[in-house]
Amino acid sequence: MNLRSVFLILGKIVFLVGLVMLIPVAIALIYGEGIWSTYLAVALFTAAIGSLSFVAKKKKLTVRAREGLAIAGLVWIIVSFIGALPFWISGEIPSLIDAVFETVSGFTTTGSTILLDIEALSHASLFWRSFTHWIGGMGVLVLALALLPGNDTQSMHIMRAEVPGPTVGKLVSRIRVTARILYIIYIALTVLEIGFLLIGGMPLFDSIVTSFATAGTGGFAIKNASIAAYNSAYIDIVITLFMLLFSVNFTLYYMILLGQFKTAVKSEELRWFGGIVFVAIALITIDILPLYDGFFEALRYSSFQVASIVSTTGFITANYDLWPTFSQTVLVGLMFIGACAGSTGGGVKVYRVVVICKTAFANVRRQLFPRTVAPLKHEGKLLDNEVKSGITGYMFAYIIIGTVSTLLIALDNLNFSEAFTAMAACLNNIGPGLGSIGAVGNFSHLSNLSKIVLIFDMLAGRLELFPILAIFYPTAWKKG
Amino acid sequence: MNLRSVFLILGKIVFLVGLVMLIPVAIALIYGEGIWSTYLAVALFTAAIGSLSFVAKKKKLTVRAREGLAIAGLVWIIVSFIGALPFWISGEIPSLIDAVFETVSGFTTTGSTILLDIEALSHASLFWRSFTHWIGGMGVLVLALALLPGNDTQSMHIMRAEVPGPTVGKLVSRIRVTARILYIIYIALTVLEIGFLLIGGMPLFDSIVTSFATAGTGGFAIKNASIAAYNSAYIDIVITLFMLLFSVNFTLYYMILLGQFKTAVKSEELRWFGGIVFVAIALITIDILPLYDGFFEALRYSSFQVASIVSTTGFITANYDLWPTFSQTVLVGLMFIGACAGSTGGGVKVYRVVVICKTAFANVRRQLFPRTVAPLKHEGKLLDNEVKSGITGYMFAYIIIGTVSTLLIALDNLNFSEAFTAMAACLNNIGPGLGSIGAVGNFSHLSNLSKIVLIFDMLAGRLELFPILAIFYPTAWKKG
Repeated sequence: MNLRSVFLILGKIVFLVGLVMLIPVAIALIYGEGIWSTYLAVALFTAAIGSLSFVAKKKKLTVRAREGLAIAGLVWIIVSFIGALPFWISGEIPSLIDAVFETVSGFTTTGSTILLDIEALSHASLFWRSFTHWIGGMGVLVLALALLPGNDTQSMHIMRAEVPGPTVGKLVSRIRVTARILYIIYIALTVLEIGFLLIGGMPLFDSIVTSFATAGTGGFAIKNASIAAYNSAYIDIVITLFMLLFSVNFTLYYMILLGQFKTAVKSEELRWFGGIVFVAIALITIDILPLYDGFFEALRYSSFQVASIVSTTGFITANYDLWPTFSQTVLVGLMFIGACAGSTGGGVKVYRVVVICKTAFANVRRQLFPRTVAPLKHEGKLLDNEVKSGITGYMFAYIIIGTVSTLLIALDNLNFSEAFTAMAACLNNIGPGLGSIGAVGNFSHLSNLSKIVLIFDMLAGRLELFPILAIFYPTAWKKG
Repeated sequence: MNLRSVFLILGKIVFLVGLVMLIPVAIALIYGEGIWSTYLAVALFTAAIGSLSFVAKKKKLTVRAREGLAIAGLVWIIVSFIGALPFWISGEIPSLIDAVFETVSGFTTTGSTILLDIEALSHASLFWRSFTHWIGGMGVLVLALALLPGNDTQSMHIMRAEVPGPTVGKLVSRIRVTARILYIIYIALTVLEIGFLLIGGMPLFDSIVTSFATAGTGGFAIKNASIAAYNSAYIDIVITLFMLLFSVNFTLYYMILLGQFKTAVKSEELRWFGGIVFVAIALITIDILPLYDGFFEALRYSSFQVASIVSTTGFITANYDLWPTFSQTVLVGLMFIGACAGSTGGGVKVYRVVVICKTAFANVRRQLFPRTVAPLKHEGKLLDNEVKSGITGYMFAYIIIGTVSTLLIALDNLNFSEAFTAMAACLNNIGPGLGSIGAVGNFSHLSNLSKIVLIFDMLAGRLELFPILAIFYPTAWKKG
């Protein structure tokens, strides 16, 4: 690994994060909150350290696959730590591990919280907390690529390590232009949601931070009762739709902008995603019908919760811990499926789930008729061995991380379904699980060991495992 | 599919099962139980139907992969149904679905029971119930291969569909001789266990049926309190050791018989299996220490339960539902790992788990250094693509079946961890799960839908998915 290149690039990104932290300073000043000085101090300190990278000797940077992975893994750890400092220094979150947990949960767009009383936070911190979702959703590195100058082949390795999905959607030939296009679509959709929420009577501040949390498919709310606090069917419907919109591959929006509407709608992954969402909503609506006042009430709560879980957002409008086990199990299933590749959502991704199903069926066929060769296709293209073995490696690593995490969390004072869904909620970047960490619970009562395991899971899940695994792989650090 | 060949071979096996059912007739007569007539009637009826295959016109049989799979799938369904008849006709198990559940649980060596009072059963039925474990452990078809004459290439396709593990251990060049060698080792080990149990003061009848259940890694006990009823440390230790012995690839015993002791001990799968068992026992012993009277007491119960779950037997000496969540989670993890390939145990199999771990690590390496090729090895041999893609296909089918089953079982009045572990216990052929279907519970209170799903899971798990999936695959039935 070329450590010099890794550190120089890390430095530039840290500088950028320092600048971004000036926004909560402004928020604090607007609301006349004394916490502005804490945010300013951390922002200046961060920017100062990061700016050291600009004075280094100009020399060609080396960014190969391993440097790309290491940069992605380290950037997320460093940025999470920096982002946690204002919470901790200001005393709003007295424990450092809790502050890091909350910030990792923010950047990774998980949305699991250790806060018992969210509403006690300053506006600046509420804003910062939700803003981490927004940055993390599209990616810290994608942001850096969009804003900072640099070389295209090198950027590819960095972007590949951060963008979710088995294939990196390269919209145009220049990777930095791709990053900018993605951010423009992202900003446009976010602004659209803010507008729709304002129309529904949600206050401006709430509309902005809620839209940030929806856009990143994060799930931090600024009310203790999450979205249920607004108690408005209109707001529920708007957020349901936007959660689903942000779960779709952003490449499709670009296609639509180019007028290729038909090609976009023909996307195989989109159709599977639509099918899964439709079936899940139908099943849960029927299952919870007796608990609610009529069909539309049940449909409202089931569709919100399905969209919230499948998009890996994690907003809450109903205490689904009181729903029948069947509906809970459907939700747990959706936790693992997750959103589409190339979206801001997490989970295994619909793309991989579809390939898994096709591989399983193909295998039955192959067992029956060993001599006939039927090639696997996806999105009309042949699946090559590279992609297939990538998905297999991913799934196997995923199963191992999930199992070991559940074991470590089980050391805590939780029952099996709590330990299992805590892992599922964090590894898939969703937020709430079942039971004491469920719809009306939170993660504050977990031990520090569990919190550290879950911090690892959130990062591993957001970066699709390998960048985080790579930094623990000794030979990756060998000089060269 | 050549239906004629499938039906003729099925007929011969059905005839054999009819003959085997004469054994419980003898047991009933020894104990002077009136149920002998029921068993005799079913035995004769079965043998009569099966014998029709012997009068068919002599014509060459066609057994390719698809016929092999169909025979394996159908034989297990038919034999389970026949085996259930005496329970149902005699009224000892009044519901037909319950009787089939109990028999499938027997043949598949699962050991999940719907009986509320096991001790109320006749000796003949207790014997038959445990004897199904013994036959199912090594395999109905392997028994048929050992006893019936036939062609070797055809037998290979049949044996491949039934013997657990990714590769069929062909001990000697003639497959029927292999089947006989396997049964001789199996009988010898069973007799050895009977002897050791008799020395410990266990009654003869109990020793025989307990040894059958251990040998098949089944887990049916003839006492309501399972093995805890004997309350003897000696018996616990004997059964612990034999459960582990029956979890080992039988090929290794053959090697030892041939004097190749060193080669047998060098088996990579054996070493991993030993490591997993050792670590699991150590972790649980430490975890449950406060609950028991000293280290050796804790060690006795933890090692018994670890051996019972990892071997997929399912005997009980302690109510592990009262153990801490960590120990329960270790046990749930072991449920999925299972025993070694080529043993009588179930689960994913240590072989596959090891390959999964190696693939995951190789993938991290490949992400870091895309240009270096490091081939995967197992047992000193290169893993070819055939084996790797077979394991991937198996795992993916396994995940899909597990998920859909859990969803269907969740429709029942169970909580998430009960629904999940009911699936895990049946798909991995273990027996008990957690909670109401746990150590002191049983499966009687489940709905018929859940029982049917679990019957499917037990069969799919025992036959390693594909034979059961194959018979639901329409094109498999096309003539030709």
